Amino acid sequence: MTTLSPYDNMSPVAQAAYRARAAAADIAPLPRSAKDDALLAIADALEVRTGEIVAANAEDVARAREAGTSESIVDRLTLTPERIRAIAADVRDVAALPDPVGEVVRGSTLPNGIDLRQIRVPLGVVGIIYEARPNVTVDAAALCLKSGNAVLLRGSSSAYASNVALVRVLRDAVGGSGLPADAVQLVPGESRDSVRELMRARGLVDVLIPRGGASLIRTVVEESTVPVIETGTGNCHVYVDAQTDLGMAVDILINSKAQRPSVCNAAETLLVHKDVAAEFLPLALDALAEAGVTVHGDERVMGYAGNSKATLVEATPEDWETEYLSYDIAAAVVESLDAAVAHIRLWSSGHTEAIVTTSQAAARRFTQLVDSTTVAVNASTRFTDGGQFGFGAEIGISTQKLHARGPMGLPELTSTKYIVTGDGHIR
Amino acid sequence: MTTLSPYDNMSPVAQAAYRARAAAADIAPLPRSAKDDALLAIADALEVRTGEIVAANAEDVARAREAGTSESIVDRLTLTPERIRAIAADVRDVAALPDPVGEVVRGSTLPNGIDLRQIRVPLGVVGIIYEARPNVTVDAAALCLKSGNAVLLRGSSSAYASNVALVRVLRDAVGGSGLPADAVQLVPGESRDSVRELMRARGLVDVLIPRGGASLIRTVVEESTVPVIETGTGNCHVYVDAQTDLGMAVDILINSKAQRPSVCNAAETLLVHKDVAAEFLPLALDALAEAGVTVHGDERVMGYAGNSKATLVEATPEDWETEYLSYDIAAAVVESLDAAVAHIRLWSSGHTEAIVTTSQAAARRFTQLVDSTTVAVNASTRFTDGGQFGFGAEIGISTQKLHARGPMGLPELTSTKYIVTGDGHIR
Repeated sequence: MTTLSPYDNMSPVAQAAYRARAAAADIAPLPRSAKDDALLAIADALEVRTGEIVAANAEDVARAREAGTSESIVDRLTLTPERIRAIAADVRDVAALPDPVGEVVRGSTLPNGIDLRQIRVPLGVVGIIYEARPNVTVDAAALCLKSGNAVLLRGSSSAYASNVALVRVLRDAVGGSGLPADAVQLVPGESRDSVRELMRARGLVDVLIPRGGASLIRTVVEESTVPVIETGTGNCHVYVDAQTDLGMAVDILINSKAQRPSVCNAAETLLVHKDVAAEFLPLALDALAEAGVTVHGDERVMGYAGNSKATLVEATPEDWETEYLSYDIAAAVVESLDAAVAHIRLWSSGHTEAIVTTSQAAARRFTQLVDSTTVAVNASTRFTDGGQFGFGAEIGISTQKLHARGPMGLPELTSTKYIVTGDGHIR
Repeated sequence: MTTLSPYDNMSPVAQAAYRARAAAADIAPLPRSAKDDALLAIADALEVRTGEIVAANAEDVARAREAGTSESIVDRLTLTPERIRAIAADVRDVAALPDPVGEVVRGSTLPNGIDLRQIRVPLGVVGIIYEARPNVTVDAAALCLKSGNAVLLRGSSSAYASNVALVRVLRDAVGGSGLPADAVQLVPGESRDSVRELMRARGLVDVLIPRGGASLIRTVVEESTVPVIETGTGNCHVYVDAQTDLGMAVDILINSKAQRPSVCNAAETLLVHKDVAAEFLPLALDALAEAGVTVHGDERVMGYAGNSKATLVEATPEDWETEYLSYDIAAAVVESLDAAVAHIRLWSSGHTEAIVTTSQAAARRFTQLVDSTTVAVNASTRFTDGGQFGFGAEIGISTQKLHARGPMGLPELTSTKYIVTGDGHIR
């Protein structure tokens, strides 16, 4: 038709971002019911169109196998009818959550009679950069829609066919329910250039959330001019205090390390107070051995190797900062609680640190001094999770201090605005 | 003495940042009384050592005059005993404010019996980059200390002598009250390189807040790898609706534009609904003329120039995006409320927009559709201000959506952490 906008000469990524902005403006004021209808339409469409999605996914899986991709990554990439049903169920769960938009965060009548209200509003356009997990495509879109945002999805090129199929289904469902389909878009192009352009789209994209490994996150944090929420790197610590319940300490250690070693809230370092080392370490080393965990110990930990069944290797300084995400743990004996805190301050990624103690004073001091998203007292590091925290959904775990810290639910996908209402008030 | 840290080979800026981190860790857990004592010591010291401060300031003022600096900038730079007394009084006001740190933002007992608490904690190290207003040195330090943060101050080199003297007084008072003096530091070096290094100190500095003109803010936003809170640019709009109280509309327009044109919450554009233009514009143009305001009008506004005393020039597209900060205003007639919203969406900096209307439906639609930090209904744009909002203090007005939006008080200088307390809970 006619040229309607100055955007026609723009790159496909910029056009997508402008269309997302327009869609974001349209959906921001919508009531909950309109957004929930779209989410339920998405869930239904995923189930109805499972065949189409599985067929597209099979292309990606075949390509990945040809490229010699590891089976664990192929497994994450694979969509089955059963998995798609589970994804659809998650979307229905998101629809059932309360709408964060419109919440009055703060409100008062000022001395001059003005009514002041701070209310939650959507962020606008959210960009998600992620790896070869097509379930993230649907999860992220559902959370963004529920919170009134438009979303630009940039998944791994190795999941491109799956993402194209999924986003087609999502857009059809969104459009069919009367919302602008442009609220959900795949960032066009499979090359790195499209990622780079997305990261430079300051003013068009309101926030970028990278989801994936440490190197992806580092790249986005360093190269983006769009504000970023840093997620996920977890070098988590378990500190066993001088006064402790030995059995509880062993249970929390093993659960933190070995219940699911591949996730960011799994423990990566054990710190033991010197006064309890002789009693605790033999128990801990045996339990870790039983769980199949290799211990990277400092000199003093190595001294307890004698009778244990443990696989023990001597730690290097690099071990203190490593997020293994595997059946490995670094371990050191510390002189005091304050020495444990100092070690954590120096090496932790600031995700989650646990203390196991019977001392109220120690629990209080540890929680005051440790500066991480989550401090656990007599509980596993594995509880740092939106689902566990009762948020009902999670877009990621922020390890930064600005905007959101720790597990991010729907309110973390919003901003606020102030409404000032007077009757002709002037200064 | 001996080499104690790996930081000895670092640049002066990095060393300052590391020392600030250490100080931040020390002050984060301090109770309110310790921080307030330091603030009161600062206020006293400013008064006792006024002579020293005024003498240093006189050097800056002399240099500025020699360089032919405009009198309005020299005035902002100048410190007098009276101004120093007022700054000290502001510090005492900050001490009297509630401490945001430790506030339980959210808390519950999870179904498994874990107690979950989200509590406010300091951000850590806050960097402030600002222009030749030495009062900001003290204001920013007081707000950061009160909220448990260490602060790195990078003022204009044209106020260097004043800032050196002020920071000496601040550090002596902080140290004398038992807190680490390194919680308040001037970024070493007068060159641009030190600013650049500060902007690249990601991981050492938790947030940068630029305070000053649009070009300073743009530079920091674009070049910084440290998270930035964007402040201050205000291309604010007053929209006069079809149904309106003409007298109220004139009063709000004049107050928004002319009560103090040099500030970010002053109005820069007037939009008038076409149905009320013939009645309203003659009144408005006369009132603006009386207030000494030049009107940059679109074609339709120019049509009402006839009998008015107004200074009218024809607007160019550039006028719609200009933050004049002077006795100038852009003005246009719009077809509808939605057209006003579209104009605002296209051109506004997202600071503050006001509607003057007697229609409840119009007020509701305008507040829903306008996406700015503050939407004012029948009130002047000039109310967007931490003091007016009752926050007691203000570190700036954020025009971004992440972390803080609108006037920022003490809570906006904090982050949160989660405390998970169990009795041996595992997953």
